[in-house]
Amino acid sequence: MTEVSVLDGRAVLAAVSPRAAIDHTRHAFERHAAGEWQMPPKVYLEAPPSGDFRAMPARGDGLATLKWVTSFPQNPERGLPVVAGALLVSSAETGALLALLDCAAVTSLRTGAAAAVSAQALARDGASSVGLIGCGVNGGWAARCLAAAGFGAGVCADARSEAAEGLAAELGWEVGERERAAAQDVVVTVTPAWRPVITTADLRPGQHLAVLGADAAGKAEVELEAFERCSLFCDEWEQASKGGELAGAVSSGVVTRDRVTEIGEVLLGRAAGRTSADEITLFDSTGLATQDLGIAAAVMAALDRGEVEAPRVRL
Amino acid sequence: MTEVSVLDGRAVLAAVSPRAAIDHTRHAFERHAAGEWQMPPKVYLEAPPSGDFRAMPARGDGLATLKWVTSFPQNPERGLPVVAGALLVSSAETGALLALLDCAAVTSLRTGAAAAVSAQALARDGASSVGLIGCGVNGGWAARCLAAAGFGAGVCADARSEAAEGLAAELGWEVGERERAAAQDVVVTVTPAWRPVITTADLRPGQHLAVLGADAAGKAEVELEAFERCSLFCDEWEQASKGGELAGAVSSGVVTRDRVTEIGEVLLGRAAGRTSADEITLFDSTGLATQDLGIAAAVMAALDRGEVEAPRVRL
Repeated sequence: MTEVSVLDGRAVLAAVSPRAAIDHTRHAFERHAAGEWQMPPKVYLEAPPSGDFRAMPARGDGLATLKWVTSFPQNPERGLPVVAGALLVSSAETGALLALLDCAAVTSLRTGAAAAVSAQALARDGASSVGLIGCGVNGGWAARCLAAAGFGAGVCADARSEAAEGLAAELGWEVGERERAAAQDVVVTVTPAWRPVITTADLRPGQHLAVLGADAAGKAEVELEAFERCSLFCDEWEQASKGGELAGAVSSGVVTRDRVTEIGEVLLGRAAGRTSADEITLFDSTGLATQDLGIAAAVMAALDRGEVEAPRVRL
Repeated sequence: MTEVSVLDGRAVLAAVSPRAAIDHTRHAFERHAAGEWQMPPKVYLEAPPSGDFRAMPARGDGLATLKWVTSFPQNPERGLPVVAGALLVSSAETGALLALLDCAAVTSLRTGAAAAVSAQALARDGASSVGLIGCGVNGGWAARCLAAAGFGAGVCADARSEAAEGLAAELGWEVGERERAAAQDVVVTVTPAWRPVITTADLRPGQHLAVLGADAAGKAEVELEAFERCSLFCDEWEQASKGGELAGAVSSGVVTRDRVTEIGEVLLGRAAGRTSADEITLFDSTGLATQDLGIAAAVMAALDRGEVEAPRVRL
């Protein structure tokens, strides 16, 4: 018999500030690149006609986590979330199950934090203004993490004007058109990615782009031709080249492995990041199980310090 | 925000009787063989030096399940269980997470029920007496499921005499030596499987053997030579030939694919089971994620009928 802490979305967000999410996400990228954290390939379980489930295990720093998460793209039409599920947290030393976390909150924090970590590592010195294209849940957390990292003010662009207005009001940023958002120092895209929202004409010397929306082959937020103008980075080549923003560019031969650097290599100082002020850097974020583990470690640390309360259930 | 039912081991066992476990396990074997239930290969996450975690997804009959379970073989030395974890149950139609189940109880029920289903399908007409070699937790549930299926009385053999005595007292069976247990009509082995507990000399014409203990390559409960005397069955060739009782016999060339029949094929009437009263049948049970799904479906049905109470947590 064991006691398991249960943290809903509100509790997860109360446990992990944007600043903590950034620190833990950077640590996750570094340990992943160092080979100290393990992440077997995620497993897909098809659930036609609605979508699929994904099982994403990871291990590091004494914890083992398993994210069980859906992608049910048509769910919003029936008032249900695209993403649902949970993150299980176990001790990698004893095997004991420790906690059950809301998975959408973990995903938002690790997605938003990845954008901020990429901007800290790759944006040019003095980069400040942010353009956010796509102001949904994960876009909102990208903006909050960038603000926590000292970026902003920003321009919030979204076809749903109330989403852009709400976020802009919260952060003291502005609402603007896509074109204006795309002209800022740091540009973050978090759209459904069914069609490109960044064209070659949008690119400005010295920009940093964090491209977060493409989560399946066939989806892309950046026009294919634009890749040739950018220095390319990703969280993990394996995932990014198959199911991320880079997938289309790789399959069409525009981008090859040697042109893309994993961000963990840059953070560890093993590979070059930006090499000039005029360079345009593009970071493709696909979302790693090790990032989920990083956020889970932050939650467990907050629980240990008594900074957040969570019901415990017997299992 | 969603509400998730949480069932500890006691609640799972209260929700699913041995008889229900048998019915749902047979259904799982049949739907698996029919290709209606899906089960991607399990994923292993190594956790050296202690053991490993396994993520086992499955889908069928409107549910999607994920078992997250440890094998930490040295854990008993520090007073901790070898197997720990949980089974997540989601709706395959909406993606919503529905329940969190204790994983050891699910594993015991599906393991014990598999032995009973194999005996119902493969034991000779009139087979009655049971020999149980290994009277631990899963052995106990094998005995209870066989009793629920009308088999017995039985002989309980275990080097730990109190384990054999407790189970024999519960079921009105006897305690006996390994040799006596191995001479019964239906023989079930559920040992750590570090060395064979069934030799060629033990075999009796017309016996049915259900071999449940080997859960990794290199482990075996039956002497290699004995395989040549038996008609061979398993839950799934892929798992059984790599990590089950059959693994050693397959890698040494004693057993080939064409000699082994999956039990679902027998249950569906697509393949022959036992063909004579003198034949010795051997069923290698490795444990399928679809069996876990079958038990989860039984739990959810009991919850729906209000037959079991479970706390609900917000996630």
